Amino acid sequence: MKEQKIHSGWKNTLHEIIYEADTPLGKFFDIVLFVLIILSVILVMLESVKEVDQNFHKILLTLEWVVTIFFTLEYIARLISIKKPWKYVFSFYGIIDLVSTIPLYLSYIFAGSQVLLAVRAFRLLRIFRILKLVKFMGEASQLKAALKASRAKIAVFIYVVMILSVIMGTIMYLIESNEAGFTSIPRSIYWTIVTLTTVGYGDIAPQTNLGQFLATIIMVLGYGIIAVPTGIVTVEFSRHKNGDKTKSVVHTNTQACPSCASEGHRDDASNCYNCGELL
Amino acid sequence: MKEQKIHSGWKNTLHEIIYEADTPLGKFFDIVLFVLIILSVILVMLESVKEVDQNFHKILLTLEWVVTIFFTLEYIARLISIKKPWKYVFSFYGIIDLVSTIPLYLSYIFAGSQVLLAVRAFRLLRIFRILKLVKFMGEASQLKAALKASRAKIAVFIYVVMILSVIMGTIMYLIESNEAGFTSIPRSIYWTIVTLTTVGYGDIAPQTNLGQFLATIIMVLGYGIIAVPTGIVTVEFSRHKNGDKTKSVVHTNTQACPSCASEGHRDDASNCYNCGELL
Amino acid sequence: MKEQKIHSGWKNTLHEIIYEADTPLGKFFDIVLFVLIILSVILVMLESVKEVDQNFHKILLTLEWVVTIFFTLEYIARLISIKKPWKYVFSFYGIIDLVSTIPLYLSYIFAGSQVLLAVRAFRLLRIFRILKLVKFMGEASQLKAALKASRAKIAVFIYVVMILSVIMGTIMYLIESNEAGFTSIPRSIYWTIVTLTTVGYGDIAPQTNLGQFLATIIMVLGYGIIAVPTGIVTVEFSRHKNGDKTKSVVHTNTQACPSCASEGHRDDASNCYNCGELL
Amino acid sequence: MKEQKIHSGWKNTLHEIIYEADTPLGKFFDIVLFVLIILSVILVMLESVKEVDQNFHKILLTLEWVVTIFFTLEYIARLISIKKPWKYVFSFYGIIDLVSTIPLYLSYIFAGSQVLLAVRAFRLLRIFRILKLVKFMGEASQLKAALKASRAKIAVFIYVVMILSVIMGTIMYLIESNEAGFTSIPRSIYWTIVTLTTVGYGDIAPQTNLGQFLATIIMVLGYGIIAVPTGIVTVEFSRHKNGDKTKSVVHTNTQACPSCASEGHRDDASNCYNCGELL
Repeated sequence: MKEQKIHSGWKNTLHEIIYEADTPLGKFFDIVLFVLIILSVILVMLESVKEVDQNFHKILLTLEWVVTIFFTLEYIARLISIKKPWKYVFSFYGIIDLVSTIPLYLSYIFAGSQVLLAVRAFRLLRIFRILKLVKFMGEASQLKAALKASRAKIAVFIYVVMILSVIMGTIMYLIESNEAGFTSIPRSIYWTIVTLTTVGYGDIAPQTNLGQFLATIIMVLGYGIIAVPTGIVTVEFSRHKNGDKTKSVVHTNTQACPSCASEGHRDDASNCYNCGELL
Repeated sequence: MKEQKIHSGWKNTLHEIIYEADTPLGKFFDIVLFVLIILSVILVMLESVKEVDQNFHKILLTLEWVVTIFFTLEYIARLISIKKPWKYVFSFYGIIDLVSTIPLYLSYIFAGSQVLLAVRAFRLLRIFRILKLVKFMGEASQLKAALKASRAKIAVFIYVVMILSVIMGTIMYLIESNEAGFTSIPRSIYWTIVTLTTVGYGDIAPQTNLGQFLATIIMVLGYGIIAVPTGIVTVEFSRHKNGDKTKSVVHTNTQACPSCASEGHRDDASNCYNCGELL
Repeated sequence: MKEQKIHSGWKNTLHEIIYEADTPLGKFFDIVLFVLIILSVILVMLESVKEVDQNFHKILLTLEWVVTIFFTLEYIARLISIKKPWKYVFSFYGIIDLVSTIPLYLSYIFAGSQVLLAVRAFRLLRIFRILKLVKFMGEASQLKAALKASRAKIAVFIYVVMILSVIMGTIMYLIESNEAGFTSIPRSIYWTIVTLTTVGYGDIAPQTNLGQFLATIIMVLGYGIIAVPTGIVTVEFSRHKNGDKTKSVVHTNTQACPSCASEGHRDDASNCYNCGELL
Repeated sequence: MKEQKIHSGWKNTLHEIIYEADTPLGKFFDIVLFVLIILSVILVMLESVKEVDQNFHKILLTLEWVVTIFFTLEYIARLISIKKPWKYVFSFYGIIDLVSTIPLYLSYIFAGSQVLLAVRAFRLLRIFRILKLVKFMGEASQLKAALKASRAKIAVFIYVVMILSVIMGTIMYLIESNEAGFTSIPRSIYWTIVTLTTVGYGDIAPQTNLGQFLATIIMVLGYGIIAVPTGIVTVEFSRHKNGDKTKSVVHTNTQACPSCASEGHRDDASNCYNCGELL
């Protein structure tokens, strides 16, 4: 362990700073990254507002360059400080990091591309990695576990809702034929889901008596149906809550393997569970 | 059992393939059927979109013929491979199968019938039979059991909601008389249900101060009422969850009786619970 | 008990038929009453639909006369067959019965009164009495008990929602001043409740950026708030469910006291809990 | 304790009346205060309704003066009767009391200021102090405890909803570019939250097929997501409910310390938990 440290000391330090959050410098780096991600997403939003973009285009562009350069340096640092760079490049966060970095460069190659503007909003996904900082992590794990356990039931539920929507949508299309926005079956299905989920925009609304009668049935159905996912999740929550101490120990180890960048190690881990590298 | 098999071997094989899903061929058949049902429903949807129908009418019609011919052959095979065909014909799925098969034929007899177009959407119901394939089946049974157990309570609940809607709707009709869409009591009741279920289209909305005041009461009421079905279902879920091992054994036997096509046999069943036929 | 029966035998029989549901005649009477109430409410609805009223006014009026005469006779019978008529007259159902009977008579005195039309919709309340018939009665009692137990918590909840609505509504009024329908504070409060309960008509909607930002906060708040009544009711339900056998015995005695017409006697009651009269 | 009472007898009496609710006079004072707060908030509302303000401006102003003078006297009395006035002045309720008192005075200095009108609505917050009167206090404590316990989980939940909204909003902005109200990313995010929370105003609604398809996904997602806070709160409720007797004793002591005005003392407290002063 000692030899290894000496071998590539600065790389290890860089790894600690960039990938982990249990040293003061690592924490500081994560906070800077957090602020820059939020800033860059706000920049994307402001650029999309015409009045703001017209008046402050230069400032926005400059700030975007600042963010992009920081992200570029960070991406390079991540590549250098890890032992198996290709594994990182093709990992989920590796791709997100690359996509977060390149839009501004690309916009000079493919001029005027609107889509690139918005791709930058995906930078927000990077925030999930910095969640390591947050003390709520244990809570998030519990939520995730409960949702995972009720996954199958929710799938069945959505499946039934889908079939119901298609059949109801088709019937509504026949009843309201071409009136009031029910111009095609897909649009009728769209309306049915809008109604069943109690969203109810009102851009499409039944006009005939029969249509309104069927609509009330769909609504009351939707009202009853909303109880199902709630029931499922509540029961799972209460199970996970009660079984806390014995079953699911929540590990809040924020270290990432210096070799393969895999995360989620046990609190008492000294070797990577994936590649065996010392942590 | 052996003699029977020899007696009408190919019929039994056909039965295995069409009605069951525990042989490779049976599984393959179910997957093909699944794809064709989904395809045929997408065809119905696309036909209802004017732009698509105008440009691709011929392709859509051809594909519809493919589906119809397959369904026709399948229907005949189902009739042949079962011992008591009439029982199948008048069973729930028998009727659904017939209705799924004939619309295209009928459209040549009763020209230009719009309704026939949509009847084809009911083919989706056939998918529930193929659900046998899905591993989520146990989950679905649990959901069904919980909903069944809370059926009576939900009936009481809907009953109260209905009476409330009629009385509230009548009062709103008096307050907003003929203004803002409250043109008749049925329409006012429609509005009340739209509000009580928190759908809220906004095609009808109270304009008077008194009407808006009463509307807020209905909303807060609806907000409280939504808690009731959720509470009911959650409690039932948690009961079924906890009592899992002792009470409700979920049987996932996918076999159907070769004689009377009844399903839902116990996992360890060797004879049909309905007609005694060997499975 | 025997002497009493002899004393006023036909009155007792009448009482049995009208007030109770445990004899065949009593059941039949309740079913007739049920059908007539539903019919009369449908009549009220149809009269409010202009096209129907114009074409079928005579038929509707005739049927309304049939219902009114039946209700009149029934009201008189109820008065005769009970020992303390005044107690009945001023009881809840006594008033409902009277109000259900007289609108048609009054409409000849106060010509053209629209309100009388709608008063007839209150006849629906009479249906709750006939609920005695329904086997779901035990379920309804459980629901009622759970709601009653969570009454205090729901009151606190509505109280907080109200204060929140007033303060939020006032702020929105200041932000959106006179724009987009926020013309006064009461109307802004109306909008806040429409949003908080996730109804969302869209007849009033924020137009300014700040207003829309505040609106999203109200929505997410409303989203979280909806969890509270659900949680309250669910916990009460599960408590009542579990404590079923020991605590709350549900009495389904459908008898009414022949003297004071009070209901809800214990299943094994032989005397009225209110006046001591033999049942 | 006796000497102290003699020392400043009338101050103590005043303190009892104003700050506490366990003497008849104290209760009476709280009720008067309650009525005046409600009255003053109704005045604010009525002033904002143009028709009412034009016709009854003088009456409204007079009543506002009555409320303001009462609040002024009350504020002075609160200052006199407490031992450490500055501590009160800078306490939460001290600031609320001041803000509740001065708007009318200020409106003569800063003429025509609309904002002052609305600031008066914050007087409603004062009502929470008088809640001491209400017997539901124990229930409120339970609700608060349950919400507090699920605070972390709800924070995680809102965090995820926010990130989802930004990403979904950006995608919708790209799809529906500038059509149908999706004029900027912030506005698209506003729409996403309106949809995700099932509010659904309909002032902005997708028009393209792809947009409507994505919208249905957001809706079904929102439908599932609504289950999460409900599940969290329900589980916390049931935990607090069951642990009632042993864990959380609810103290309903309505006394406030005569020296530092801190509240929430134990039921059996004889000294202030904060400054040690005798209660």
